[in-house]
Amino acid sequence: MNPPSTPERTPTSVDRRRFLKRGVTFGAALAAGRPITGHAQLAPDDPSKVLGGPLRPYGERSRFEQSVRERPPGGLDEFGGNFTPLDETLGIITPSALHFVVQRGGLPDIDPGRHRLLIHGMVDRPVILTVEEIRRLPSISRILFIECSGNTRTEWRAPATGAALPWRRKSVRGTHGLTSCSEWTGVPLSLILREAGVQKGATWIVAEGADATGNERSLPMAKAMDDVLVAYGQNGEAPRPENGYPLRLVVPGWEGNVNVKWLRRITVVDRPYMTRMETAGHTALMPDGKARQFNFVMEAKSVITSPSGGQRLPGPGFYELRGLAWSGRGLVRRVEISTDGGKTWRDARLQAPVLRFAHTRFRLDWRWDGREAVLQSRCTDETGYVQPALTELVRVRGLNSDYFNNAIQSWKVAADGSVHNVHA
Amino acid sequence: MNPPSTPERTPTSVDRRRFLKRGVTFGAALAAGRPITGHAQLAPDDPSKVLGGPLRPYGERSRFEQSVRERPPGGLDEFGGNFTPLDETLGIITPSALHFVVQRGGLPDIDPGRHRLLIHGMVDRPVILTVEEIRRLPSISRILFIECSGNTRTEWRAPATGAALPWRRKSVRGTHGLTSCSEWTGVPLSLILREAGVQKGATWIVAEGADATGNERSLPMAKAMDDVLVAYGQNGEAPRPENGYPLRLVVPGWEGNVNVKWLRRITVVDRPYMTRMETAGHTALMPDGKARQFNFVMEAKSVITSPSGGQRLPGPGFYELRGLAWSGRGLVRRVEISTDGGKTWRDARLQAPVLRFAHTRFRLDWRWDGREAVLQSRCTDETGYVQPALTELVRVRGLNSDYFNNAIQSWKVAADGSVHNVHA
Repeated sequence: MNPPSTPERTPTSVDRRRFLKRGVTFGAALAAGRPITGHAQLAPDDPSKVLGGPLRPYGERSRFEQSVRERPPGGLDEFGGNFTPLDETLGIITPSALHFVVQRGGLPDIDPGRHRLLIHGMVDRPVILTVEEIRRLPSISRILFIECSGNTRTEWRAPATGAALPWRRKSVRGTHGLTSCSEWTGVPLSLILREAGVQKGATWIVAEGADATGNERSLPMAKAMDDVLVAYGQNGEAPRPENGYPLRLVVPGWEGNVNVKWLRRITVVDRPYMTRMETAGHTALMPDGKARQFNFVMEAKSVITSPSGGQRLPGPGFYELRGLAWSGRGLVRRVEISTDGGKTWRDARLQAPVLRFAHTRFRLDWRWDGREAVLQSRCTDETGYVQPALTELVRVRGLNSDYFNNAIQSWKVAADGSVHNVHA
Repeated sequence: MNPPSTPERTPTSVDRRRFLKRGVTFGAALAAGRPITGHAQLAPDDPSKVLGGPLRPYGERSRFEQSVRERPPGGLDEFGGNFTPLDETLGIITPSALHFVVQRGGLPDIDPGRHRLLIHGMVDRPVILTVEEIRRLPSISRILFIECSGNTRTEWRAPATGAALPWRRKSVRGTHGLTSCSEWTGVPLSLILREAGVQKGATWIVAEGADATGNERSLPMAKAMDDVLVAYGQNGEAPRPENGYPLRLVVPGWEGNVNVKWLRRITVVDRPYMTRMETAGHTALMPDGKARQFNFVMEAKSVITSPSGGQRLPGPGFYELRGLAWSGRGLVRRVEISTDGGKTWRDARLQAPVLRFAHTRFRLDWRWDGREAVLQSRCTDETGYVQPALTELVRVRGLNSDYFNNAIQSWKVAADGSVHNVHA
């Protein structure tokens, strides 16, 4: 006995329109993403009528999927930021192939069989470890976000309008696409440091990468002994080359740059080493002219990823507002959403599991009435800290620096359905 | 001021040997995986001395990474099982490219712009939905395992020894590699069914895929209205072609085959439809000659993935025992490990977060004394159900069928360090 091959009632276009109109849950199409074009070979009209292709040992994505990391026009091949398309990613795991990248010396080509990690300095027993030796040690796995402290750096001042908007300010991938989230697997750094024997008076470490930038960052010993990982796994396999293959330091909740990629050396020291990336960059110049240094923690932040800048709502009706929230202080406790530029707020649904130092996916049903609307999200973390409005942030931080901007983001939905980055 | 470019004490080979010998945490190399060979181009001796390569919009894995789904020798391109290398995957997220695949009509080539989902049968409003329409509906994300009910089907009887062992019995990828775990994103099927208006008397659905097998499976309405997803996302992006692109039914905790890939039709009906995959296969023939049908739930199960069959321990010393546990009834509450063939048991560490219907990673420190050892893991789920020994399972189920084998797996470590599949 087979299921009926034709429906009891043929679904006509009339039926379909009725279905789509009636519920609160069906609405007009959200025109996001780019059209799918240029496929040399057409897919079969009915795939069930033809034998499919061979199974693949390592199954890449469909030829119809075209999400990519993007960079501003004129960006360089070996230098700069490549942004995760947050408007297209789903859930909380960022596909490893789309994890954001910031680098300054190109993508190093590293043979894991020859790569080594040196631990030395103020330790009793300096040591060189192979990747295989590290993979044998007691391990843990954690789902963790990594965010560049330069994420959202374009949003300190009100944007110009219209066509003059620079690339980064146009869409959520440009404004917020320097954060991503993976399941990282590795060895607690504390274990390796304890084995090496940290000497009295050692209060910092300096971590160094193996790429052409020679990125070095100082980290306080307290954090190094707390929850830092020497990671050799990302989303179930080795990290992608852009994200530190074969070893990456993963520092939960702290700015991306200290999550040193291509990790090859840890020097145990008695002070911070004032490296380039903690002096020339990654500081916050305050209104009084003094620079805050070693800020490290990425404070609570959130952003609506859909609808977001550059998208167009085809018409009034139901939309699911979707976004991501995170905090370098731990758990996201609450995300509120406003559709009227901050006058009123509603609690978004937080997708379980909500995890410390991980992206949290939030969602809220919304019926757009076709009138201008300003969409905002506001995150509160487990410490009670509330993501600030830009005016609040500027009041404290001034406008002298551009790192560590965690202000509330506003997207204006115009009456024609177009969505724009605004400072409400 | 720069970190010292040479260590205070040069780490010599003597130092290294001392380091590796002293701690409980460092031991001899676990010889797993295959050697890395055949790289036409050598990586630079010191990657920091050369400009790296260009950043890539979609960053594939390193050329040095070679994990693949495997199949038994003689397996066909378009038919059969392709096994996740559980001995190589890390954490709980299975890389999408390595998610196990069982299929019978090859890999369909589906244009998501032309794919449709039909919901009809005993409903008030039959409907055809596009993928874009489905992506607009209220959504959820869940980290969920999918396991083929034929996983471990080779283990009902004691294996022959030595070279005669078939491929599947040699390693954990063959014995247990038909389970994988992803973050799935999609729409609750209940929402779509409610919109369509399920009629009185409708107690089952039939789900159909768009591939050449025309896989159809009957599911009780109670499950369909509970937690089933129409998924369009896997680990942050669209499902891979082998795993149902662009739409897959995801049925938490239930056998893989009902997680219908390439989903194109749901027929609402008043009885199960006795399709091929619920009559000719996927039943359990009991000792009394009667077949249990519609078993669906994957009972609590676990397996040690490292060390596991086919690996070789290079010598006595420290090893971290690692494995995966899961239950189609919900949470894994406990995993115990025996290293003496079941005489004594110790609790393994469960990696947080432990999630309902997801793989749970477990680990336990072990010092191998160089003598023969038999490694086993035993899972207990939130219902109190304990994963059975094979003898217990056979006592209840007999030996007439080969689906739904969740017995405790034994790996024997011989005195020479080689690891073998045994029935302890």
